[in-house]
Amino acid sequence: MNLKTLASHLGLSQTTVSRALNGYTDVSLATRNRVAEAAKNFGYRPNVNARRLATGRSSVIGIAFPTDMNMFLDPHFIEFLAGLSEKASQLDYDIMISSSQNDEVDVYRRFAEKGTVDLVILSNVDLSEERIRLLQDLNIPFIVHGRTATCDTYSYIDINNYSVFHDPTKMLLELGHEKIAILNGHPDRVYAIERFHGWQDALNERGITPNPDYVRSGVMSEENGYSFAMEVLQLGERPTALLCSSVIMAKGAYKACSDLDIKVGSDISILAHDDSVPLANATEMDPPLTVTRSPLRDAGREIAIMAMKYLKGTDIKELQCLWQPELIFRKSVAAPPRDDI
Amino acid sequence: MNLKTLASHLGLSQTTVSRALNGYTDVSLATRNRVAEAAKNFGYRPNVNARRLATGRSSVIGIAFPTDMNMFLDPHFIEFLAGLSEKASQLDYDIMISSSQNDEVDVYRRFAEKGTVDLVILSNVDLSEERIRLLQDLNIPFIVHGRTATCDTYSYIDINNYSVFHDPTKMLLELGHEKIAILNGHPDRVYAIERFHGWQDALNERGITPNPDYVRSGVMSEENGYSFAMEVLQLGERPTALLCSSVIMAKGAYKACSDLDIKVGSDISILAHDDSVPLANATEMDPPLTVTRSPLRDAGREIAIMAMKYLKGTDIKELQCLWQPELIFRKSVAAPPRDDI
Repeated sequence: MNLKTLASHLGLSQTTVSRALNGYTDVSLATRNRVAEAAKNFGYRPNVNARRLATGRSSVIGIAFPTDMNMFLDPHFIEFLAGLSEKASQLDYDIMISSSQNDEVDVYRRFAEKGTVDLVILSNVDLSEERIRLLQDLNIPFIVHGRTATCDTYSYIDINNYSVFHDPTKMLLELGHEKIAILNGHPDRVYAIERFHGWQDALNERGITPNPDYVRSGVMSEENGYSFAMEVLQLGERPTALLCSSVIMAKGAYKACSDLDIKVGSDISILAHDDSVPLANATEMDPPLTVTRSPLRDAGREIAIMAMKYLKGTDIKELQCLWQPELIFRKSVAAPPRDDI
Repeated sequence: MNLKTLASHLGLSQTTVSRALNGYTDVSLATRNRVAEAAKNFGYRPNVNARRLATGRSSVIGIAFPTDMNMFLDPHFIEFLAGLSEKASQLDYDIMISSSQNDEVDVYRRFAEKGTVDLVILSNVDLSEERIRLLQDLNIPFIVHGRTATCDTYSYIDINNYSVFHDPTKMLLELGHEKIAILNGHPDRVYAIERFHGWQDALNERGITPNPDYVRSGVMSEENGYSFAMEVLQLGERPTALLCSSVIMAKGAYKACSDLDIKVGSDISILAHDDSVPLANATEMDPPLTVTRSPLRDAGREIAIMAMKYLKGTDIKELQCLWQPELIFRKSVAAPPRDDI
């Protein structure tokens, strides 16, 4: 049973049947019910082509990035994409990955011109995010993974990045740590800026002046985790705790501690934000790593559902998600060594 | 300077200028040279829209997989995709990722109907690969990453998977090993079948009967590497060498050896094929892992170049690449323990 035979059986046009199955209110409720019942009886499942026929949409979600920034090399992005792809395929959406030699602007103009995609997902936003205005100007629907400073005019999903560093810093202070260094993500990214503020405020609330020597920022790779840790661990006033923006960075930091013969979980405490990236399993580290956790794959899945709701007309205000990560305590954290108290 | 102003400066149509820049021979050589010179003088770089205008093509490379097999969870696929995406974006191609609830056939029909993609890339081929005939029937250009039994009718890139297990098995035999187990990829995949034959033949050539207890096959994950190794290492006749289909599996095997207190590089020799997947670095393992190496990222890059050549009309026979991996000897391999000789 395909759309054509179902329509012919019902004596309706294919477009009407398809729009009815998709719940469009320009088809009367009575007809919608009749179509739904017939579809059920005949075991008909509306397929993506039928939906496209009815809606004039492409059923494609677009993601763009500049050529010189290959997102496929970033395990955090891949993890997000795995969730997005899983849910998108269940919802019969395809995903278009586009790069541009210069920036993403060319790609968006092309999308707008051709109607290639129904919706675009923005990642890695910085504070002065110009792509957002461009997409609004081009009238391309979009959802942001992350947020900018002013985020009330668009749909987004984000985690509370302020908490991601504020909560662990507060806990470390309770344990007696005062010399807390951060190995943060790229300093342009909003999430890294928010995390920095979380750390800074937690220290200030205790009357401790944040030490700029204890701040390192860059791409969240194992290499950077290693070299940033090597730097701060060899300062005159060695920190007693390292707060990392990802488990992958923490892996590098563990290696630095091992090379410097510093024992994690006694000589030094290490914590990280855990995006649940495969091959970077916090529980399997030695000692197991204390984390704030919010799986990126869940965010990818959720954004696919949000995309569908957006395209069905749900109000933007109802498509603004802020997730609160949990702080999970494990053996990589202890009170600071006695001679440091 | 855009295509329009360049065309108007030259007194030619945009289509002619675009076709000239793309080297189409229906534009005279004199005109092509004149256009190329003007483009160079004005610093004009033909963009993807202009090419699409000229060729009627989508400049999209398609990849499809069934919903229940989320390829984004497979680090081997991601590594391939990273190379493909890098080179594709330099060549102004977009990548379309499509999934289907059932199989990929729906997706290909849709592609054919809509002209969504110029070319499709097939991965994970099995022996009776029906997708190949379907794509040929639908007249969709495609390139296979891997090969089937009969591979002379299509374009492909592959490594010599027979050698991937034959060469190391031969080397192990030279060292005195006879009890060699294999932790192989999924038994349906052509590459895994080829590797199995390589191992089997190398043993037979020495008059050694391959032991079926020494054969394990499945998804190339760390978990499978661990559990397969646990199984074969606890057999009555423990193997003296393990040959793994990926470094990720070898990581699991290393862990199994550690749990069973078996020393890699003396009690047991371990080898693997190395696709150069990040976070699975063979040189950083302890001891460093002996491998056959062929980076998947290189294969991804190459397939983008092949796609471009294919679409420019290069003969299929010239687009059949078979790469020979190298065998790189490291400390995870030694002669078998004395009591096993």
